[in-house]
Amino acid sequence: MKAGIKVFAPASVANVACGFDILGFALDKPGDEIIARPSDLPGLSIARITGDEKRLPYEIERNTAGFAAYTLMQHLDCLDQGIELEIHKKMPFGSGLGSSAASAAGAVVAVNELLGRPLTRRELLPFAVLGEQVADGAYHADNVAPSLIGGIVLIRDNATLDFHRIPVPKGLIALVIYPHIKILTKDARDVIAEHVSLQSMIVQTGNIAGLVLGLIRSDFELISRSLHDDVIENQRSSLIPFFYDVKEAALKAGALGCSISGAGPSIFAMFNKSDSAEQAGEVMKQIFSTNGISSDVFISNINHDGTVVY
Amino acid sequence: MKAGIKVFAPASVANVACGFDILGFALDKPGDEIIARPSDLPGLSIARITGDEKRLPYEIERNTAGFAAYTLMQHLDCLDQGIELEIHKKMPFGSGLGSSAASAAGAVVAVNELLGRPLTRRELLPFAVLGEQVADGAYHADNVAPSLIGGIVLIRDNATLDFHRIPVPKGLIALVIYPHIKILTKDARDVIAEHVSLQSMIVQTGNIAGLVLGLIRSDFELISRSLHDDVIENQRSSLIPFFYDVKEAALKAGALGCSISGAGPSIFAMFNKSDSAEQAGEVMKQIFSTNGISSDVFISNINHDGTVVY
Repeated sequence: MKAGIKVFAPASVANVACGFDILGFALDKPGDEIIARPSDLPGLSIARITGDEKRLPYEIERNTAGFAAYTLMQHLDCLDQGIELEIHKKMPFGSGLGSSAASAAGAVVAVNELLGRPLTRRELLPFAVLGEQVADGAYHADNVAPSLIGGIVLIRDNATLDFHRIPVPKGLIALVIYPHIKILTKDARDVIAEHVSLQSMIVQTGNIAGLVLGLIRSDFELISRSLHDDVIENQRSSLIPFFYDVKEAALKAGALGCSISGAGPSIFAMFNKSDSAEQAGEVMKQIFSTNGISSDVFISNINHDGTVVY
Repeated sequence: MKAGIKVFAPASVANVACGFDILGFALDKPGDEIIARPSDLPGLSIARITGDEKRLPYEIERNTAGFAAYTLMQHLDCLDQGIELEIHKKMPFGSGLGSSAASAAGAVVAVNELLGRPLTRRELLPFAVLGEQVADGAYHADNVAPSLIGGIVLIRDNATLDFHRIPVPKGLIALVIYPHIKILTKDARDVIAEHVSLQSMIVQTGNIAGLVLGLIRSDFELISRSLHDDVIENQRSSLIPFFYDVKEAALKAGALGCSISGAGPSIFAMFNKSDSAEQAGEVMKQIFSTNGISSDVFISNINHDGTVVY
């Protein structure tokens, strides 16, 4: 076993307007730092957690990073070896930025690396998804997969983890604004109706097909026409004050599209001009701050690397 | 004006499993023949209709081909000229093979050609869609667009006719079987619920995205995994006796996928081996005939040409 491995696992945007539960992409920042190193204690342990305001558990089976790494070690039949993790949270929880997914992705990469890389990056996905399931309750990969492998990732089917990287057009820029408000995961779920009108389904399927085609063809106009959510946004936006003001400001500044990141409260927008993204970020932040809500803005290219070993 | 123009407009498969209302492709056969020629009578008239068992009206505004050509001539401001149409139906009505769409596509191409081709092929689409609307009631292009321009066509949005040809993998073969039973359009519509479960919508969006990606990448396994209809098929199949037996036979013979063509009763299947397609066609036909239902089987590549002028 190597001496110690430090990795950076990036935040991600899931749902991506018309891609509810099936599409996500990775950001350059923010992200979590995970360290894995040999330990005298056999099995997996968590030695240290920082940046979490003491909210994350040290028990392996209740910790996303811990459980992800544990299931990986179990699979590799090496739980007799001793490994300890450090988890340095460098991004907000419950923000809609895939925080738990990043920790899970980081943990499996760090442990796999420490063990001499027995599995490929893609083979690590199921273990990271199991880890995120601890925090999220659901088995889905639309945050974990981009955090792990980078890029824009389609999860055709979550149950079988049939996932595919979609080519990213040159010059595509992502903006995420995280307003400092709390949305409980339960509320974000409860607000979504269990049924969708057939008409909305038709619109949504047309848009996701158009978005995939637009990305592959680097057709920014098609991307823009397709980047709409006809189903979830109008339900979840009720949990994000000033959502439509902020969205309108993004579109006015030149965004190709704008919708809720993950389950919110973060809002993402996509651009093909960095000037527009910078300008949009300022106006969007201004709207929140005028209304007494502080926020963080992150602007980056789509992250192509996923989790990286330092 | 030229002396006379004869065109062939091909049948098409709409809906294409996960592409309800937004995806269609053209077949090499069957198809309709439309003739347009100068007439002494000013305006548009229908001189002759064959192959329709006297079921199609000669009144322009009630005839799909007639109304399509009429709106085109109106747009071109040339209704003072005299043009007559002959419509030779060479495919069954109400079969789920896009019969009315083929006639509409053929009519606009023939008339446009006769007038010296003032519009491009793509510019003709709105007029053909208006024509099909006469028969179908709905304004959608998932049969008309492939009949007109050929290939596999995504209609991202029917209202604005935002349509795109999807690349067709080499070796992709389509089979359509038309069992000689009647489904009323009204029944085919009434049987579909107005709402879809959120879970089915997620499955359907994953599959349409996977199908587009699979077609672009010539990834037959991904095409096969994606070519499912989680929403409409289980509702409409009740109108097609022995549907699941026929589908199972197709899949056993090696079909990549199999579902209802348009609103039925035709059933389509896709293959990447012509042997499998031939074999499937025989077994599928056998199941219907054993149960006293005659049928026609059409096997062809995807038609890349759409409507062609002889």
